[in-house]
Amino acid sequence: MSEKEERIHKVIMEDRKLLRITGVRKVSSFDTKEIVLDTVKGGLVIKGQDLGVQNLNLENSELEIEGQVDILSYLTGRSKESSGRGVWERVFK
Amino acid sequence: MSEKEERIHKVIMEDRKLLRITGVRKVSSFDTKEIVLDTVKGGLVIKGQDLGVQNLNLENSELEIEGQVDILSYLTGRSKESSGRGVWERVFK
Repeated sequence: MSEKEERIHKVIMEDRKLLRITGVRKVSSFDTKEIVLDTVKGGLVIKGQDLGVQNLNLENSELEIEGQVDILSYLTGRSKESSGRGVWERVFK
Repeated sequence: MSEKEERIHKVIMEDRKLLRITGVRKVSSFDTKEIVLDTVKGGLVIKGQDLGVQNLNLENSELEIEGQVDILSYLTGRSKESSGRGVWERVFK
């Protein structure tokens, strides 16, 4: 995959229960209520109920999630070059 | 359009700056930082910067938004049959 493709961040959500995300760099944590990931457009927190990762393919920067989605929340775009760790510390300290 | 089509709620976001939403019942308010709408899957608040409605077609239940998207936040699914008003009163009172 080219570097250009990796940098496209797309979110497709259907009926609040199926979420496909591209441009994913890493998944920092996940459980049934919260999934924390780093995308090429910044850190992203997904909150909901009965969340589950259906498909995670970091070679293609793709993630598929099932469950009821309540909140998608981005951090400001500055985390692009960071590992994400410092950003979370700032937010949740 | 059939009733079935109206009930499909899909969100497509590209690079955090272009948002296409179907299954939109009404837009309650919008400004550059916050757009409040009612969808067939519940109330939805979009927060960001420089937000603007590019296209609103309630006959097709479609909405297009440009701007930097920071947060998509749904209310719980119970608002499905309500006008949306009671839900916002509960949240923002």
